[in-house]
Amino acid sequence: MQRFPKPFRDELSELMRWRRDVRRFRTDPVDAAILDRCLASFACAPSVGLSEPWRLVQLTSPEARAKALANYKDTNAEALKGYSGDQAARYATLKLSGMQEAPVQFAIYCDEATDKGAGLGAATMPEARRYSVVGAIMQFWLTARAEGLGVGWVSVLDPARLNRDLAVPPAWHLVAYLCVGWPETNSEMPELEALGWEQRAATLTIETR
Amino acid sequence: MQRFPKPFRDELSELMRWRRDVRRFRTDPVDAAILDRCLASFACAPSVGLSEPWRLVQLTSPEARAKALANYKDTNAEALKGYSGDQAARYATLKLSGMQEAPVQFAIYCDEATDKGAGLGAATMPEARRYSVVGAIMQFWLTARAEGLGVGWVSVLDPARLNRDLAVPPAWHLVAYLCVGWPETNSEMPELEALGWEQRAATLTIETR
Repeated sequence: MQRFPKPFRDELSELMRWRRDVRRFRTDPVDAAILDRCLASFACAPSVGLSEPWRLVQLTSPEARAKALANYKDTNAEALKGYSGDQAARYATLKLSGMQEAPVQFAIYCDEATDKGAGLGAATMPEARRYSVVGAIMQFWLTARAEGLGVGWVSVLDPARLNRDLAVPPAWHLVAYLCVGWPETNSEMPELEALGWEQRAATLTIETR
Repeated sequence: MQRFPKPFRDELSELMRWRRDVRRFRTDPVDAAILDRCLASFACAPSVGLSEPWRLVQLTSPEARAKALANYKDTNAEALKGYSGDQAARYATLKLSGMQEAPVQFAIYCDEATDKGAGLGAATMPEARRYSVVGAIMQFWLTARAEGLGVGWVSVLDPARLNRDLAVPPAWHLVAYLCVGWPETNSEMPELEALGWEQRAATLTIETR
């Protein structure tokens, strides 16, 4: 492999600009073949020491989903208390998860106790295992977006409570909760920017040493 | 944006399969315009609360590079002591960084104290900020690879020592050390697999709840 052709590189850049964290989903189902193509990107993600520490739990039952949704609602209500005045009012209007609507939902874990890779690269920076899981999620996110699917990453959750509710092994560490489905709308602008919460930086600062 | 065309999706999948963690670089320089195109992918990466917490330090001086390389060598010698017998012999033969050769090198940090995003999404999972940095790195990695550039992620380092040597602000947390340059070779197989350290899993396991 050498350089990929310019039309591909331009489209890749376009994909990244269009990606978005989606919180507004249509409720119609996602074809299993499409989802499988997206999930295949986990298998070729980089991982420290080739440890492949990602563990996926798909929430399919109404019971598991109801518990996760209640977790989000309670955690979000608690987070709101951290703001005051105009900021609290603005926070209260934000839609921060599509957990009510998204047809496909995953809790994504890192297995901290995996033997795979024999600890290579994780002696002084064991967090590299969790970062490997994030890298895989990012590949999944871009692949899904290329299929037209939206992905939303929910971090407004109490991880310990979710772990209990999902009865995962104690060595599994929650990295992300993902909502997946067909987005209601598409935009080049992050929703938090469109709604006035925060703006993107104009330039990337790089220090030198 | 709807679905991207199939030829693009096929090439994206090909890019991910070809990506690799590169440790063997040619020493010839990387054109600044190419590097800038790759770094542009940071600006459109997802980040919790739109906090954009990534901070880049490019190591350009021989002094800074020598300190980072010594850090890697010492940390790697220490890591070797954690293995014995055949495994130690095999570990000793692995080339785990291209820090000696790679023309472009970055230490990538997360600013844990950023006001940007006003803490949204990081109350119960503050590590989401570091994960945002990893997502941006993954976009950079794929963009670089599409340009034919290799990226290697070195985690065999003492972060506290690197932070001191680079004199970064105390609130900056080291996420990754990246080597960037033209790869000596290309392969669809991870080097750790080719050298017999570990194999990739055949299938992705997904539990349901």
